Amino acid sequence: MPIKNKTSLDSFFNPQSVAIIGASAKPGKVGNDIVVNLKNSFGGKIYPINLDDKDIEGLPAYPSILQVPRAVDLAIIVIPAQFVPKAVEQCGKKKCANIVIISAGFRELGPVGMKLEKQVEKIAQKYQIRILGPNCLGYISNLLPINASFAKTAPAVGKIAFLSQSGALGTAVLDLAQAQKLGLAYFVSLGNKLDIDESEVLEYLMTDKKVKVAMAYLEDVRNGTRFMEIASALSRKKPLVVLKAGKTEHGQQAVSSHTGSLAGSAQTYRTVFNQVGAIEAEDLEDFVNLAKGFSLQPLPRGNRVAIITNAGGPGVLLTDLLPANGLTLASLSVTSQKKLKAGLPEAASVKNPIDVLGDATADRYQLALEQALKDDKIDAIIIALTPQKMTDIAAITKTVGQISRRSQKTVLACFMGEASITPHYELFSRYSLPVYAFPNQAVATLGQMWRYNQWKKNNLKTKPTIKPLTSSKTPKILNKKTLTEIEVRQLLKPWGFNFHRAVFARHLAEAEAAAQNIGWPIAVKVVSPKALHKSDVGGVKLNIKSVIELERAVKQMKKNIPAVSGFLIGEMVTGFEIIVGMKRDRQFGPLVMVGTGGIYAEVFNDVSFRIAPFGPAVAREMIKELKVAKILAGARGQKPLDIEALADILVRLGKAACQLPRITEVDFNPVMVGAKGQGAKIVDARIISQ
Amino acid sequence: MPIKNKTSLDSFFNPQSVAIIGASAKPGKVGNDIVVNLKNSFGGKIYPINLDDKDIEGLPAYPSILQVPRAVDLAIIVIPAQFVPKAVEQCGKKKCANIVIISAGFRELGPVGMKLEKQVEKIAQKYQIRILGPNCLGYISNLLPINASFAKTAPAVGKIAFLSQSGALGTAVLDLAQAQKLGLAYFVSLGNKLDIDESEVLEYLMTDKKVKVAMAYLEDVRNGTRFMEIASALSRKKPLVVLKAGKTEHGQQAVSSHTGSLAGSAQTYRTVFNQVGAIEAEDLEDFVNLAKGFSLQPLPRGNRVAIITNAGGPGVLLTDLLPANGLTLASLSVTSQKKLKAGLPEAASVKNPIDVLGDATADRYQLALEQALKDDKIDAIIIALTPQKMTDIAAITKTVGQISRRSQKTVLACFMGEASITPHYELFSRYSLPVYAFPNQAVATLGQMWRYNQWKKNNLKTKPTIKPLTSSKTPKILNKKTLTEIEVRQLLKPWGFNFHRAVFARHLAEAEAAAQNIGWPIAVKVVSPKALHKSDVGGVKLNIKSVIELERAVKQMKKNIPAVSGFLIGEMVTGFEIIVGMKRDRQFGPLVMVGTGGIYAEVFNDVSFRIAPFGPAVAREMIKELKVAKILAGARGQKPLDIEALADILVRLGKAACQLPRITEVDFNPVMVGAKGQGAKIVDARIISQ
Repeated sequence: MPIKNKTSLDSFFNPQSVAIIGASAKPGKVGNDIVVNLKNSFGGKIYPINLDDKDIEGLPAYPSILQVPRAVDLAIIVIPAQFVPKAVEQCGKKKCANIVIISAGFRELGPVGMKLEKQVEKIAQKYQIRILGPNCLGYISNLLPINASFAKTAPAVGKIAFLSQSGALGTAVLDLAQAQKLGLAYFVSLGNKLDIDESEVLEYLMTDKKVKVAMAYLEDVRNGTRFMEIASALSRKKPLVVLKAGKTEHGQQAVSSHTGSLAGSAQTYRTVFNQVGAIEAEDLEDFVNLAKGFSLQPLPRGNRVAIITNAGGPGVLLTDLLPANGLTLASLSVTSQKKLKAGLPEAASVKNPIDVLGDATADRYQLALEQALKDDKIDAIIIALTPQKMTDIAAITKTVGQISRRSQKTVLACFMGEASITPHYELFSRYSLPVYAFPNQAVATLGQMWRYNQWKKNNLKTKPTIKPLTSSKTPKILNKKTLTEIEVRQLLKPWGFNFHRAVFARHLAEAEAAAQNIGWPIAVKVVSPKALHKSDVGGVKLNIKSVIELERAVKQMKKNIPAVSGFLIGEMVTGFEIIVGMKRDRQFGPLVMVGTGGIYAEVFNDVSFRIAPFGPAVAREMIKELKVAKILAGARGQKPLDIEALADILVRLGKAACQLPRITEVDFNPVMVGAKGQGAKIVDARIISQ
Repeated sequence: MPIKNKTSLDSFFNPQSVAIIGASAKPGKVGNDIVVNLKNSFGGKIYPINLDDKDIEGLPAYPSILQVPRAVDLAIIVIPAQFVPKAVEQCGKKKCANIVIISAGFRELGPVGMKLEKQVEKIAQKYQIRILGPNCLGYISNLLPINASFAKTAPAVGKIAFLSQSGALGTAVLDLAQAQKLGLAYFVSLGNKLDIDESEVLEYLMTDKKVKVAMAYLEDVRNGTRFMEIASALSRKKPLVVLKAGKTEHGQQAVSSHTGSLAGSAQTYRTVFNQVGAIEAEDLEDFVNLAKGFSLQPLPRGNRVAIITNAGGPGVLLTDLLPANGLTLASLSVTSQKKLKAGLPEAASVKNPIDVLGDATADRYQLALEQALKDDKIDAIIIALTPQKMTDIAAITKTVGQISRRSQKTVLACFMGEASITPHYELFSRYSLPVYAFPNQAVATLGQMWRYNQWKKNNLKTKPTIKPLTSSKTPKILNKKTLTEIEVRQLLKPWGFNFHRAVFARHLAEAEAAAQNIGWPIAVKVVSPKALHKSDVGGVKLNIKSVIELERAVKQMKKNIPAVSGFLIGEMVTGFEIIVGMKRDRQFGPLVMVGTGGIYAEVFNDVSFRIAPFGPAVAREMIKELKVAKILAGARGQKPLDIEALADILVRLGKAACQLPRITEVDFNPVMVGAKGQGAKIVDARIISQ
């Protein structure tokens, strides 16, 4: 699919006239809901299309879009699936370039529906029509405004753009947004994504100053590479919060490498989101909480948090949650402590958390908040409240809201309870105060806001572009599906990997000569196309110290393993065991991995991933994310290890994987990392190709 | 404090007459709220006590409790702190044996308040008065019923007993319970716990059939050992859900052992809760969600979950969360699939998740739920709903509620949204249907219900009783604060630990003789009271293979380390490195630890704890909890290791720690675990005593 013209969604989201094909006069019908929603939201022309009715909701109806006397910018189709192709054809003839297909009954029903969807796609391409859906709720823009959906609740105006691949989930979030008066700029129900997909909508949102945060519920991504480009560019401008469904691996294709088994689909998406700076919501609840925080408050400039509370216990609960979310309890300045001491009752705590006591009214919150906003040692403030006897929630909200609106510091509220709190949703919204019922929600949101702000500052902008080799330049050896270690070494030679020193020997005499040359002790590995998992068949012997031991090893391997073509005689390498690998993802390309090696590899799952290509800075970042990074950096008085050499292997592997797209999986296991300056050596390598 | 008579809280929670000392005629005053709350809830006699007013809320008031004409079973005190001792004295004279002290101004204010509290305690002991508080909200029993609190919202009748050490947090939870119509049996605000503490209330609740679940918000525990006894006995009968505040380590005392640094206060509490079968809530939100599930639904008998949903996306979100919560997506029986296929529309999914489609009305949920309840392959059911156009939430709730009430399977609801959902709280409550707004809440609750049911079935009932040695039997060597390794070996000899073979040598000649005797290679460790961290000062040399190497090592150590009294010449031990340790907790006793040893110890934090004493079954359980348990059991075709020998070390260490209470910290690091049947040897040991 060609990349669409950047501005092409402008007319889609800003029509001046709309036709509803399948409009209905009957209340309760979807075709009626849409007309009503449009009438209540849209200032342009509305043309209901219906064969029988002449008047729908007070508007003149037409039997066909072709009979509408003026131009139609957008058509909304709500007729049974089998009639959709004809309707799209008519739109084309009418020169209506934008269509929302609400109707279901397409690819989601299997092959028959898929065929119908392809038919629609063909017609749309013929007339250069843009399509949202099919099988969607439609869209809402509170900016134009227009409600081109059959959503029963219209969200308030706000700064969130919300994309949903599931209409039902969209409904649930809109229902919640309605209750909490959470404002939206856009709601886009993506449906089957026949044409318009997440990447294109996100690209459209990039330059829209009225959109402060983009939220996307995704079940898959249409074009992985394109998504990464767009999401990465968008994230540099505004936060993109993603909820990805489908973390469980169902019917995943069989993988045969160690890396493959660690790099599941959820891991791939997590890597992608991290790499492009998108904020991945843990779950639906987190998704909604993040939207609230990101859309209503500025990003924290640091991680030092002050808590202002009317009760001790809740203050402790909030404090408990800070470290795990990358936040820290601020130390108040001496001035702040003095001012608080002077203004608050004696029993109040003027250390952080600032306890303004159970009988606190708005004035005490005001004093504490104003001081906290002035204090340079504080980056963000959580206003905590429990509904006690004297607590005037409305007054406190107004005071806090008025003060926080004038500040560039992040202020979140954690108002615990429900019966006393929810009646004030309108008020919270009016003052752009994100209110959370539970400490974990407020702290997790603040933590992600801080993390995102750090990403924005630190993200590494240079990204190499590496193209696949032409087929004439691709080594012929890749025509084989599995390669021996010798072949792997040959294949990868041009990329300059540092393999441990090893020599191929056809028989014992050559092996002896090689061993003398390398120096005892040595390692012997069998070379046989039938022994892919060499260790499992006794095809690896380490620490061989003499000719006698060597002879014994060679004889045993010849006896036990079929199709032995020779032996790899290698130096024994010491160092810290690391695993490096690659698995190619169909959507996103080569996923490169680094992790703790040896027997601990499977136990601790200490791994880090990136989509290649990437440069050394990203490779170092990957290594830093490992738990064993401490050991690599030289923990407990040990010498630091050669992180640069390890990073170099990662970069080269990423490059090779980009240039050789036929390779599907790579395991370098182990890579022995020596002391700083001593390099890192690949001791065993496996490659699986298509 | 002596353990109270088991039945002594009976009269406390079931008074027939109540006096309010500090009652007020003025609306808005706490002393008025309490009178009003009592009038609205309590069938017995109410005696307001006030010096000036003669009539309070239509009840005759008395100037002093001594002037009340009849017996008073319970007094509630709401006068300023400094007058409380006198009031308690008067209660004593009146033979009123139960008091709730609402008044604040005691230990929470520091030394002066603490003195006042001690004064009250003394008077209470003189008259054998039981006291709840001071500095609390009071209590509510919906069973008697009585509302002896100034909580502004009275909860509905239900099966939850809720204890809160923070009044404000209690208020927040009551506020939430009121909104959600979540029913309580008891609410007890513990306050400063001058007398009645969490253990005693939990003990009281143990036999109360009307209480189905106990919830406790705790900031500390009064008596650790007693709490463990009670909580453990209670957990065998009904779930105890705990929210512990204070996870951050503030001003924690300095610890000098490796074990000490891993065994913080949060870790200790987590260990205790796990060991007694209490369910620790992750946060306040989890606490409330768990209360809902445990109080309203039966425990799941297995972990196979069916999901019935009116939308695909939400079904996937729920499915995604199952594995991390110990649950699994059930495979429906063939019969179920047939029945569903026959009864549901063609587009419906009759595999799990069962998708009854967006236009589903109550009848489709009914069909699916009835079938799921009959299906032997299903243990629990989550009813998922998004508020779509045709969704009749009330009708679906009624249908689901009526069917689920007749079943012994666990049914939870995940109704996503808010505006359309919250108006039905009353209905959810009527049908005992726990409803969650988000998938993560429903799945986490179900996971904990399943985990608890497993604990109930599997918990190991035998617990050894081990008493400290008398001081005459305690080895004199413990008078020293730090011990050399030789002294540690001597001290621990009676407990039969398996130390690696080692001989003390005063000088080189003795060292040589010892080495010859043990056999090369050997390890040399310095013995010096000035070298506690032997490795850090070059006091350990491993793998010494000859007399020359030995001589060099001994000379170097003598030169570099002060106060060398000799050397420990030890065998080199191979095996898998494990760390074992103990840290004594002031409240709960010896906390025994096992974990991954060597350089990975600090990196992976792979540790498991129990409070000693315990037997081998518990020790094996500890080992099984480690991530390296896989390796110990023989991962990747390796031989299994000697888990029994390691378990034996843990049991012996627990026993020694119980018998020698002066030992505060122990590190056995490393313990080398050999192949199965080959034993496990302690290679290095450190002890810190008081």
